[in-house]
Amino acid sequence: MDAQDIILKKRDGLELSGEEIDFLVKGIVDGSIPDYQTSAWAMAVFFRGMSEKETNRLALTMAYSGDVIDLSAIKGYKVDKHSSGGVGDKTTLVVVPLAAAAGVPVAKMSGRGLGHTGGTIDKFESIPGFQVERSYRQLVEQVNKFGAAVIAQTGNLVPADKKLYAIRDVTATIDSIPLIAASIMSKKIAAGAQGIVLDVKVGNGAFMKDPGQAAELAQTMMRIGCGAGKRVVAILTDMNQPLGHMVGNALEVREAIDLLGGGGPDDLRQLCTCLTAHMLQMAGVRSGYDQGAELVQELLQSGAGLAKFKQMVAAQGGELDYEPPGYGLPRAVIEAEVPAERSGYVVSIDTERVGRTAMRLGAGREKIGDTIDPAVGVEVIKKRGDLVKAGEVLARIYANDQARLESACQAIRDCYQLDGSPPEEQPLILQTFA
Amino acid sequence: MDAQDIILKKRDGLELSGEEIDFLVKGIVDGSIPDYQTSAWAMAVFFRGMSEKETNRLALTMAYSGDVIDLSAIKGYKVDKHSSGGVGDKTTLVVVPLAAAAGVPVAKMSGRGLGHTGGTIDKFESIPGFQVERSYRQLVEQVNKFGAAVIAQTGNLVPADKKLYAIRDVTATIDSIPLIAASIMSKKIAAGAQGIVLDVKVGNGAFMKDPGQAAELAQTMMRIGCGAGKRVVAILTDMNQPLGHMVGNALEVREAIDLLGGGGPDDLRQLCTCLTAHMLQMAGVRSGYDQGAELVQELLQSGAGLAKFKQMVAAQGGELDYEPPGYGLPRAVIEAEVPAERSGYVVSIDTERVGRTAMRLGAGREKIGDTIDPAVGVEVIKKRGDLVKAGEVLARIYANDQARLESACQAIRDCYQLDGSPPEEQPLILQTFA
Repeated sequence: MDAQDIILKKRDGLELSGEEIDFLVKGIVDGSIPDYQTSAWAMAVFFRGMSEKETNRLALTMAYSGDVIDLSAIKGYKVDKHSSGGVGDKTTLVVVPLAAAAGVPVAKMSGRGLGHTGGTIDKFESIPGFQVERSYRQLVEQVNKFGAAVIAQTGNLVPADKKLYAIRDVTATIDSIPLIAASIMSKKIAAGAQGIVLDVKVGNGAFMKDPGQAAELAQTMMRIGCGAGKRVVAILTDMNQPLGHMVGNALEVREAIDLLGGGGPDDLRQLCTCLTAHMLQMAGVRSGYDQGAELVQELLQSGAGLAKFKQMVAAQGGELDYEPPGYGLPRAVIEAEVPAERSGYVVSIDTERVGRTAMRLGAGREKIGDTIDPAVGVEVIKKRGDLVKAGEVLARIYANDQARLESACQAIRDCYQLDGSPPEEQPLILQTFA
Repeated sequence: MDAQDIILKKRDGLELSGEEIDFLVKGIVDGSIPDYQTSAWAMAVFFRGMSEKETNRLALTMAYSGDVIDLSAIKGYKVDKHSSGGVGDKTTLVVVPLAAAAGVPVAKMSGRGLGHTGGTIDKFESIPGFQVERSYRQLVEQVNKFGAAVIAQTGNLVPADKKLYAIRDVTATIDSIPLIAASIMSKKIAAGAQGIVLDVKVGNGAFMKDPGQAAELAQTMMRIGCGAGKRVVAILTDMNQPLGHMVGNALEVREAIDLLGGGGPDDLRQLCTCLTAHMLQMAGVRSGYDQGAELVQELLQSGAGLAKFKQMVAAQGGELDYEPPGYGLPRAVIEAEVPAERSGYVVSIDTERVGRTAMRLGAGREKIGDTIDPAVGVEVIKKRGDLVKAGEVLARIYANDQARLESACQAIRDCYQLDGSPPEEQPLILQTFA
């Protein structure tokens, strides 16, 4: 078998065999296929796509290119949750303790943020003392004891994705639905859970701007998961504005704690409820979605979710005082308000730019290896559909540096578009694939 | 400027600016653009094509990526000739001395063969003592003295093409008309002639199988040449059977000498006449094509072309006795005839396979660096349209090895397709672009 023939076949629109895909993945991992052949193949895939069979095989072969986590030492039906990346998305911080409080064990590995989207691991690391680097043994022990753990990726997971993604990232071959789906799902399969709930974001703050493309991605991921013997539910959710109000690591932890304490913003509560309800239904804790959603409301009102969160944080070395409003999280030294320059309805928010502004304040990474300031970020006070008066506060900036603060204020002002008439109503949860 | 943005632009079907193309070529040559970005770009070009402006700029920038030969020290209007590669194509051996005999100086750099097509340099090297490695100074001196020289490429010519071609060759990105055209024309521009006659082969023995694609290639090359201030004529010629009868290095030299001596096969004479007539017209030696063709006939009949060939061979150290039939060329030790198994008209010859059979006998290279046996090859006696009787000789094999001889006999037999009715007549010269 020859990489060149495989590229040629894909270039000419033919379907690759399972053996050809295996050869490719093996060659990418062991270096016997040089990067220039990998990138040419990826570009051919960009133009030609991949069949369902090819995509499923690619994801599965990638999943098994390194360690595959065995979660059988954890009792119960293990459910994982994945979001395709958005702005202000702190659902994992809420959903994991809620599911655990309902008796569904969650052993979750998460990633760090890059570009305009934040990473769950960065958010947890804003909690003083919180340890994300845990061994497989520690993970299993903690989940068996408390039902929940969120750690950074451990072991040699999906080396094929690491190499392929690094090449795609610099050769304009990221935007391919089968390659995106295989990348995400190979990691989910390797992470060992039996059920997976996927949250695919769509909108001006998401990687997928187009609902049709997002739906295709969701369905492609579902097919991969089902083909690998997993139970999968995917929901399409709106990312045309940040989720909740807070964008920035400690700020988002604060908002997650607010929510677990029974407060917090409606949209975040709605999405966390939906995701958790699917997880509970999948694990068989509740027989239907609505029953799962009801249980979630009880866990939020009773404080059982927050108690689980506290257990998990303590188990991983995190120290918070849980005193409102800051809960013992790091706080920025300067704050500034961004007032509206005119009156009107908020008709759109440039969500990617909000994410990028938070990143430039220090909340995210422009490139891998950049350090993060846990305290800084943006509080998006006014959201889509809100009627504001000139001078009213649209947003608040949290910074540790005057120059960055000023440019962030300007940028956030530009993110808001106001108009005389209200925008069309947009549901948060657009579609469910189950 | 950023290679990734350039790939993205091309991927999305946008036109690259001149500066972007220059950046790309410079980066390919100096290594600042890694191979995996080059191959991804080439694959995007395969799918998206290139505009006329892009293609012209690419060829010109590539041409000037290394040395550009200055032929101004050679008196007269310098004309070059290029063939896109075929089987049995020994036209350069005939055309160069004919043009020189008519007073048109030709300082030609040629290449070695690879795969099923032969290389002019290999053919000249089958002449005992013939030197192809000459310096620029020797080239100029010889052309000023005798009007003709054919040497192997000298100096650092078109390094951008060397690197780009090497990457395309292993990433299934050869088959792109703008990239093929830019590759050929960058070398022709760097070789310094003022006029260029292009012979684009089309058919089952050529790289271009489809006449429409071949015409597009011819026109693309013409536009590049004209854009670079060259005079260019391109002809499309049939390569659905070998040109002449001989395929193999010394065998082809023998046939070229036959032709220059007033004999030789009709199709070869027709094509050599056509190519030379265009060169003479271009250089202004004759005012029209027909007058040029007449002069060529005179030069063939008078032996002036052969005399020029002898001068050139002697000037480059070649030693031949010019005694028929072998002329002092190396001869193979075994010969075998391939008889027809049935009677009928020759309706097709698998020309690429004839070339590949000659290569396997030792006349060509499977891969770069393979050594060549100058004596071996195939004599294609019966050609398209010929009526043969069962048992009549279709072809003769010249070999230095019994095992290779036998498999060649079998292969050549399989190349011939015979039928009860004659094939449609096919002109040799299909189209002229001037």
